[in-house]
Amino acid sequence: MRALTVQPLAPGTARIDDLPAPDPGDSLLLVDGIALGICGTDREIVAGAYGWAPPGRDRLVLGHESLGRVRQAPADSDFTAGDLVVGVVRRPDPQPCGACARGEFDMCRNGGYTERGIKQIDGYAAEQWTVEPGYAVRLDPALADVGVLMEPTTVVAKAWEQIDLIGARSWFAPRTALVTGAGPIGLLAALLGVQRGLDVHVLDRVTDGPKPDVVTALGATYHHDPVAEVAGKLQPDVVVEATGAGPVVFGVIGNTAPYGITCLTGVSAPGRKLSVDVGADNREIVLENDVVVGSVNANLRHYRAAADALTKADLRWLRSLITRRVPLDDFADALTAHDDDIKVVLDLSAGGR
Amino acid sequence: MRALTVQPLAPGTARIDDLPAPDPGDSLLLVDGIALGICGTDREIVAGAYGWAPPGRDRLVLGHESLGRVRQAPADSDFTAGDLVVGVVRRPDPQPCGACARGEFDMCRNGGYTERGIKQIDGYAAEQWTVEPGYAVRLDPALADVGVLMEPTTVVAKAWEQIDLIGARSWFAPRTALVTGAGPIGLLAALLGVQRGLDVHVLDRVTDGPKPDVVTALGATYHHDPVAEVAGKLQPDVVVEATGAGPVVFGVIGNTAPYGITCLTGVSAPGRKLSVDVGADNREIVLENDVVVGSVNANLRHYRAAADALTKADLRWLRSLITRRVPLDDFADALTAHDDDIKVVLDLSAGGR
Repeated sequence: MRALTVQPLAPGTARIDDLPAPDPGDSLLLVDGIALGICGTDREIVAGAYGWAPPGRDRLVLGHESLGRVRQAPADSDFTAGDLVVGVVRRPDPQPCGACARGEFDMCRNGGYTERGIKQIDGYAAEQWTVEPGYAVRLDPALADVGVLMEPTTVVAKAWEQIDLIGARSWFAPRTALVTGAGPIGLLAALLGVQRGLDVHVLDRVTDGPKPDVVTALGATYHHDPVAEVAGKLQPDVVVEATGAGPVVFGVIGNTAPYGITCLTGVSAPGRKLSVDVGADNREIVLENDVVVGSVNANLRHYRAAADALTKADLRWLRSLITRRVPLDDFADALTAHDDDIKVVLDLSAGGR
Repeated sequence: MRALTVQPLAPGTARIDDLPAPDPGDSLLLVDGIALGICGTDREIVAGAYGWAPPGRDRLVLGHESLGRVRQAPADSDFTAGDLVVGVVRRPDPQPCGACARGEFDMCRNGGYTERGIKQIDGYAAEQWTVEPGYAVRLDPALADVGVLMEPTTVVAKAWEQIDLIGARSWFAPRTALVTGAGPIGLLAALLGVQRGLDVHVLDRVTDGPKPDVVTALGATYHHDPVAEVAGKLQPDVVVEATGAGPVVFGVIGNTAPYGITCLTGVSAPGRKLSVDVGADNREIVLENDVVVGSVNANLRHYRAAADALTKADLRWLRSLITRRVPLDDFADALTAHDDDIKVVLDLSAGGR
């Protein structure tokens, strides 16, 4: 069985290994990999900047944006052969913090969690993988060619849940949402905003390529003017920030409507100083009762919400987010960003060989 | 009847006027003023930087931190002569937004609210004033000499409610709170933190004067080292920021515990740029699911919470916050900040003449 592996923190070590087929024992699902989504975290790991191998080993099977089909399921599980499934990324610490003990492992306090394909557990970039039934989520069979979008959808399902819960601390009836960044996270955040009935605006810097049309096809409005100008005019009730770029972050948080909520989802690199009028932003946040909330990862509740959101979405629109499907052997090409990429996926099926 | 009035946006116009006694009619409480607290907003208004006179008039009676005793109450009200009362500051817009329509006028969306002593309605800096029974809050009679601390206490009661409601979006069991700034807002925020059973730390830059002892007397810990150093060591679950100073704001938000909540309450002046590592702060906020929330003003629920908090507090400790009591005639001295001031109050009673 072939798998894409990497030696974490050692750049340039990604390769295809031939590994023994995984053993599901009595308790695990055995799953045939269909596809694997590639994201910035995978590129960071392959570049040697992030990642942890399992204890006692040098190499990690990469991949956390999974999609597969159940080959074999324990008799006492809710799954049967043929089910379309996605595996959850994070597992709680074996000595769980208060959040992990309550299934809220996306809010882990002690950092002792593990993550498939990222931190100490093998990932899903393999022709076959196993998963605990309690960490597998079944998808509508119609989603076979787009279900690989589940993991980034769980991230935005959590982000929107945070916005809803924080908004509910007082009267909250948002109308206008601005999403900054038209990558997969931004576009899926826009999808969930449209599904909530909001007037959704998406800002990115490109003026060509597929992104403007993808935004328009969703029924949202595409913008490429400077962020402070766009946000200043819109005065959005909600912002989902998906670039992680300092100037964009500061361009939006000072330009929301009163009681505005800005959800930060983009993981940025430290080390670049930016000169900002902190007094003005602090004053606006206080006098308008604004909130800035960071959101990362997702728990099982968010996987279920994401599965619902994908089921409700237009299949053609979801397909338009996957701009390249690359055979496993060409992983190096998949890991290299191309102009006009939205989501790049590795094909793990026999047909992709 | 004497009252402290000012022509908003005209610096140096504060004076004592002799005004007709207010008429409560059939529906209002008539209240003898006991004391009025002075805060930064009053100083901004007197300096000509803020404030709105009532429609059709040039001058505004100043004052929003009230305390008085009911002289006369409508028969159908819940009040009787002799009750110790505080008047609420804000009133909803006559054409209320969704928040104001639900009593959540502290979250007003359209800015059409009015505020006694600040925005279009006369304030409480008068020997007698009237107030609608629905916007008066009765205090424990034991609080006669400290009840003037109510209004700033309502501000921190709202801040703590915001922290509690936002914390409740997932598992939340905070242990350590850091309060930045040992003025009245910071110290009252610390009081409510101690009442919640938290390990409370207060940071200010002074090393002498009354503040360190006031913090210690509360059972909290006083710090005067650089903010990033103190926050970095404490890794607080909750921060109440009460300075409004850019370097302090940025010193705390990058140094909270995972799932940290920073509540900004200090209104800062815009116009000073600060060079900050936005990428590092954004990354910490995202990867730790942190929140920054602004909080201003208070609604009736927060007035009731504040009245409870003051009733539970140690009276001697509350008295230690009032560092100067100034007769109404000496208002100019009360409006001038002295070293070692915590809360300065104007004495409105006959004895203060």
